[in-house]
Amino acid sequence: MFDFIIKNKESCARTGIFKTPHGEIKTPIFMPVGTKGTVKTMTPDNLNSINAEIILANTYHLMLRPGEKLIKKMGGIHKWTNWNKPILTDSGGFQIFSLKDITKISEEGAEFKCYLDGSKHIITPEKAIKIQTDIGADIIMAFDECAPGTSSKSYAKEAMERTHRWAKRCKKEHQKLAKLRKNPQALFPIIQGVTYDDLRIESAKFIRDLDLPGIAIGGLSVGESKEQMYHTLEILNPYLPEQKPRYLMGVGTPEDLIEAIDRGIDMFDCVLPTRLGRHGAFWDLSGRHSITNKKFAQDESPLDKKCTCYTCKNFSRSYIRHLITENEILGMHLLTLHNLHFLINLTNEAKTNIEKGTFGKFKQQFFKHYKPKNIKHVQ
Amino acid sequence: MFDFIIKNKESCARTGIFKTPHGEIKTPIFMPVGTKGTVKTMTPDNLNSINAEIILANTYHLMLRPGEKLIKKMGGIHKWTNWNKPILTDSGGFQIFSLKDITKISEEGAEFKCYLDGSKHIITPEKAIKIQTDIGADIIMAFDECAPGTSSKSYAKEAMERTHRWAKRCKKEHQKLAKLRKNPQALFPIIQGVTYDDLRIESAKFIRDLDLPGIAIGGLSVGESKEQMYHTLEILNPYLPEQKPRYLMGVGTPEDLIEAIDRGIDMFDCVLPTRLGRHGAFWDLSGRHSITNKKFAQDESPLDKKCTCYTCKNFSRSYIRHLITENEILGMHLLTLHNLHFLINLTNEAKTNIEKGTFGKFKQQFFKHYKPKNIKHVQ
Repeated sequence: MFDFIIKNKESCARTGIFKTPHGEIKTPIFMPVGTKGTVKTMTPDNLNSINAEIILANTYHLMLRPGEKLIKKMGGIHKWTNWNKPILTDSGGFQIFSLKDITKISEEGAEFKCYLDGSKHIITPEKAIKIQTDIGADIIMAFDECAPGTSSKSYAKEAMERTHRWAKRCKKEHQKLAKLRKNPQALFPIIQGVTYDDLRIESAKFIRDLDLPGIAIGGLSVGESKEQMYHTLEILNPYLPEQKPRYLMGVGTPEDLIEAIDRGIDMFDCVLPTRLGRHGAFWDLSGRHSITNKKFAQDESPLDKKCTCYTCKNFSRSYIRHLITENEILGMHLLTLHNLHFLINLTNEAKTNIEKGTFGKFKQQFFKHYKPKNIKHVQ
Repeated sequence: MFDFIIKNKESCARTGIFKTPHGEIKTPIFMPVGTKGTVKTMTPDNLNSINAEIILANTYHLMLRPGEKLIKKMGGIHKWTNWNKPILTDSGGFQIFSLKDITKISEEGAEFKCYLDGSKHIITPEKAIKIQTDIGADIIMAFDECAPGTSSKSYAKEAMERTHRWAKRCKKEHQKLAKLRKNPQALFPIIQGVTYDDLRIESAKFIRDLDLPGIAIGGLSVGESKEQMYHTLEILNPYLPEQKPRYLMGVGTPEDLIEAIDRGIDMFDCVLPTRLGRHGAFWDLSGRHSITNKKFAQDESPLDKKCTCYTCKNFSRSYIRHLITENEILGMHLLTLHNLHFLINLTNEAKTNIEKGTFGKFKQQFFKHYKPKNIKHVQ
């Protein structure tokens, strides 16, 4: 279990297969985010129709409501949500830090106020693992401190070193709890270090040496420039073991996916396709558009002429624009489905091109048509 | 076209087939409401999965946004919404009167303020028909005045007589415009008269004599008691021609459907299943329930153990309760789908039992288990 087999390589880009108790994941792969145990507006059937192979759920939200004990009692996250393919849960750390509800960080863990009722909670590395064990995903994440992109070097170092000590505690707790489970879970530790090259390299070495089934890169797409993010991936590359999947957390846009695959990344997740979908935006091969733009009012063509998703095969921009203007749920669903399909299809096309040795050309073609917006995307 | 063939009868209850340009409707039938050109939260595929044979759209909403001209330009309501089975549009009258935006009723028509921007509009019978011709549904409705259930007899009579004169004008305009269309449309006129028996009978005779392909009963489920509604259906029955489909507008609850089928009604529509679904309520054979009830938090059973819909085959009450508590769109979708399936399945079971001559027994069994809430359902 949790073997990662590299199938093809083209420069730094690679394709592979990662084995989990709920099936194989073929990389590179985009993973839709199901924050509260549902990829917003999507049924499992919808997710299958766009070839989703793995989805995320957020530990932070699920531990507060309905609580991990209830999910465990209902047979675990797969049975409860009726999703029988792989699931990944984050550790809750990212939400605690980004929602600014944190009240105290100590060696022990992070204390925070619940956004629902103001009640105080403390999450320790051990607790983050215990909760994720109860939820029961296939891939679980170490509890890390995601320092802001604007952190000073001294704070970045402090947070990174704490993240390393926490990662060791997570590994220990995970080994203890794994014995009590039927289905094994893969623990992925997380590289931090903000945008300081020497810290990133130090972190990569430490995380690599923990020798766990995968390696995540955190603390990117949190306010730094795209160039900084791409640069960080480049300097990390020589320090990452070949035979483990590399997961770039919280990324991203179509252009980020292509650039990161080119720099050796295998796994991605981001709320962007679902969030944009609920707010009336969609991608096609020329870039990102807002469906409420008046020019679409009488546009009988699909969102993307080359797209094969249910939305594009059945509905016009004119109709979807009407639905979004009227705040109709169907409009949000149709855009979400298309956007998720767009990113999943993009990683699939990247995969096919790496297999054929044509990824370089594919990337060139992509950027010939696709014009990224100058918007800073943060998670 | 628009033939109605009675297949079976059991006492007053009947089954039949109504032919339209987009296929046959088998009665008795429940028709989901797609107010703004979408049955809320449902794709056409979802509607097909629950055997929906015909859906509604509301002229009032569509004429204001996006406007009937746009729908016509996009190829008509079927093509625009990608629903290839029959569609019925109401005349807009019910919304104008019930939304209390009416500013003046005259012989000419009704003047109202648009709820969106306060602009003044006048709808005449001719205009209501013209708009519905542009939208392009298979069944269109005459423009009527739906007087409140609390109206005095003199006002009820005045409104009814105006409705009759308007119905004649609708018929005339329809005959004129029908010549310009490829696909024919069936115009249904509407019986009014509040709950005054003599007015209802007078209205039934007048509407019957217009000799149009179907007959609608309006002005019920607008605040009167259930007993009054059932009584009105009983006294109307002898005056309704056998060989035309009878459409009870805006009804209703499971118990109302069974009682009305027993009194010779063939067609129903109501926003209740979709609206309840978005607000966390569902039906099973014992009655109506709120999924947010704490007792469902750890309930692993489906909404309805005997139900075959996608929701019941795949999800537990526990999970759906979580989704609704968290205001997740998937929860609204799953409940909506179940509720619509419940009513469509109920009319289908009624049909099967009428065919077998066991409807009386079926009704008895239904009410043995189903306990209606003492809630006045208004449209």
